[in-house]
Amino acid sequence: MGVIFSPEADNLTTMAGPRGEYSKSVERRAEILEAAFTTFAKSGYTASSVNEIARSVGMTQTGVVHHFAGKLALLQAVLEQRDTRAELLLDGRRGRDFLASLVEISRTQESLRGVVQLYTILSAEATDPDHPAHDYFVARFERIAAAVTLAFEEVGAADGLRDGVDPRRAALLTLATTEGLELLWLNSLEVDMAEDIRRLINSLLIEPI
Amino acid sequence: MGVIFSPEADNLTTMAGPRGEYSKSVERRAEILEAAFTTFAKSGYTASSVNEIARSVGMTQTGVVHHFAGKLALLQAVLEQRDTRAELLLDGRRGRDFLASLVEISRTQESLRGVVQLYTILSAEATDPDHPAHDYFVARFERIAAAVTLAFEEVGAADGLRDGVDPRRAALLTLATTEGLELLWLNSLEVDMAEDIRRLINSLLIEPI
Repeated sequence: MGVIFSPEADNLTTMAGPRGEYSKSVERRAEILEAAFTTFAKSGYTASSVNEIARSVGMTQTGVVHHFAGKLALLQAVLEQRDTRAELLLDGRRGRDFLASLVEISRTQESLRGVVQLYTILSAEATDPDHPAHDYFVARFERIAAAVTLAFEEVGAADGLRDGVDPRRAALLTLATTEGLELLWLNSLEVDMAEDIRRLINSLLIEPI
Repeated sequence: MGVIFSPEADNLTTMAGPRGEYSKSVERRAEILEAAFTTFAKSGYTASSVNEIARSVGMTQTGVVHHFAGKLALLQAVLEQRDTRAELLLDGRRGRDFLASLVEISRTQESLRGVVQLYTILSAEATDPDHPAHDYFVARFERIAAAVTLAFEEVGAADGLRDGVDPRRAALLTLATTEGLELLWLNSLEVDMAEDIRRLINSLLIEPI
């Protein structure tokens, strides 16, 4: 089964029968997601259209809707790709180790300017409570804040937090700073996203990570 | 002269002659800016049009262009209104006193959700180097970063910084955190923008502000 999702799957698209069709469909979805990503990153969500995304991959709007129910479904699929990558890095890590992996995730963003820009534009647009992705972003921020709070609590339980540092406030500060550093980095300020977030976290810990 | 810009100026609009015309023009500009603000805050810059802004104040596009050269001129006027207010609060303050007034500015944002949302959306859109406001935002961030760096340097000269805190890095961290806290606040997370930015600044100083 694995071969269908591997780069070699290209060879299968010429095969007749359901397996070939399935593989073609997987490729089509990947192509559409790539185009949706590029369009959203350039114009934001509001100003983009399914039609524009369809045209950029030589499809009709109906053709795209066959794979993704609409613009919001495209957005969610694009965002989930990013989160899945980050969650793999965090999986099974606790306390100081979890906090250290937040620094690693920031490091990986440096080679993903387009993803960071897309995400920055969409999360800003979605601050409008009427935006279709508003609830998605609120839930996403809450989920991350809860995971980072837990990590600071684990460090606190081992007496690793500086005096007066509250785990929940530390988590919100870490999340806010990560978002803000991305914005400044995109605006060409000489921030070092990974080292600056490490500095913030270390200002809250007794022993630096 | 002052009366022309005061709330009582309304009474002058029925006067004939150049003063009445001038006053009318000032009011028209204020009305257009208010509409531009609302439209940009709702839809962002890219998805907004001068035509839409004109319609919302019952004017033609040509009528608006008589007051503001185009969409970018409208955007700059809207943004400058915000910056002027903040700069008045910072004027003449130095060192710890300057840093304390950053906390005050964050406090004033709580009653200005629309402004914060507008600014968050525009600064995100403008991360695209092709965006017409990109240079404006880069210059603005650089200007703020320079002023905050100077304040941390002044505190450092009075031996007020914790060991290993570099003024420039501290300034970028403060700026990033301010931006990120606004984003989380708009997304309904229970951040206290003013107190959370105070916490960050205090994690860098020997004596809290």
